[in-house]
Amino acid sequence: MAHQGKYRLTYFNAQALGEPIRILFACANFAFEDIRIANEDWPSLKSKYPWDVLPVLEDGEGRVISQHLAIIRYLATKFGLAGKTDYEMAKCDEYVEAAADVRNELLNYLWDTDDTDKPAALEKMETKILPSVYRKYMDIIKRNESGYLVGNGITYADIYVVSILEYVTKRLRMEPKSSNTFHDFPDFIEYQNRIFNYPGIKTWIENRPILPY
Amino acid sequence: MAHQGKYRLTYFNAQALGEPIRILFACANFAFEDIRIANEDWPSLKSKYPWDVLPVLEDGEGRVISQHLAIIRYLATKFGLAGKTDYEMAKCDEYVEAAADVRNELLNYLWDTDDTDKPAALEKMETKILPSVYRKYMDIIKRNESGYLVGNGITYADIYVVSILEYVTKRLRMEPKSSNTFHDFPDFIEYQNRIFNYPGIKTWIENRPILPY
Repeated sequence: MAHQGKYRLTYFNAQALGEPIRILFACANFAFEDIRIANEDWPSLKSKYPWDVLPVLEDGEGRVISQHLAIIRYLATKFGLAGKTDYEMAKCDEYVEAAADVRNELLNYLWDTDDTDKPAALEKMETKILPSVYRKYMDIIKRNESGYLVGNGITYADIYVVSILEYVTKRLRMEPKSSNTFHDFPDFIEYQNRIFNYPGIKTWIENRPILPY
Repeated sequence: MAHQGKYRLTYFNAQALGEPIRILFACANFAFEDIRIANEDWPSLKSKYPWDVLPVLEDGEGRVISQHLAIIRYLATKFGLAGKTDYEMAKCDEYVEAAADVRNELLNYLWDTDDTDKPAALEKMETKILPSVYRKYMDIIKRNESGYLVGNGITYADIYVVSILEYVTKRLRMEPKSSNTFHDFPDFIEYQNRIFNYPGIKTWIENRPILPY
């Protein structure tokens, strides 16, 4: 990879919210420093970061951007992967926000659902929420004809959607009662594999650390 | 107001996620159709909207944009209120996402917190989460010197932040045990009032429907 920039991305040693950004760097063939903080170090470091959250991007010129969606959109714009018109940019945004909503559902399930309500909540995630978004994304891709969500080529929306839904499904499948319905959506898996085999991304996926989610 | 566009915004008869977009239209002095769906009609209408959520924007040329952050960012770009450089746009994004996180905390409190845990969760919202974000936003504004969050003038980030935090605090103050700590942050209220008194916005605020949140 070339060393055009000195971007530094700090996140945990997890895929989750950091991985779509790492994949975007790989897709753009753009080198970056991939800093991974150990979970046990986070409490003492937290207050040093804006908004007390990760990931955080530093651009090598003292500028810091926090919030994972702000980071990925900023880099996608720099890399020409954010859509070609205002409308395409808005559709990228829309599809990304819809995937972020699914991730919020995962967090609700994991952290804010009573143990007694968890089996029903897991079933809802796996048999209602995920199938519904898979279907919606596939409908968009079929209507768009290019094989991608927006316009005639890959954008950060494709990268974000497949990466976040990979994280959500990997995490759900760790639950003892998971029904693993992910495999019931072969057309979504075909799309995801297509993105993961995209030039640049393929090499990243083959060499990235193997992590539970 | 002029009739430059035929934008049509559909939301509930509430402030919440629709109001920052309405205020943005007012700030840009741009007419729009302000459609408000009654809560009782929503179940039968829901599946007609992409992602089953509101607000939704139609642009009068058959194009539809869903997801409130995609809508506000799209319009802000059109209106020249989204920041002047890639970096300013990213900072707008970051500050908006941080306010959206506070709204997610509100939803967790309202819908996913056990009744027995609610008093502690409310106290955490009012004495930790909100004061922390007020302080962070005020620090940013003081550092920026212009009196606004980003660059040297108002952006949609100012509008989104004050409107979403108004909604969150109004909703929390409806809780019987609310401590109403909002009033302990006069510098944030001064900033909010300044945005609400901005040309265009002032007229909207004076004439908008009075709603609980």
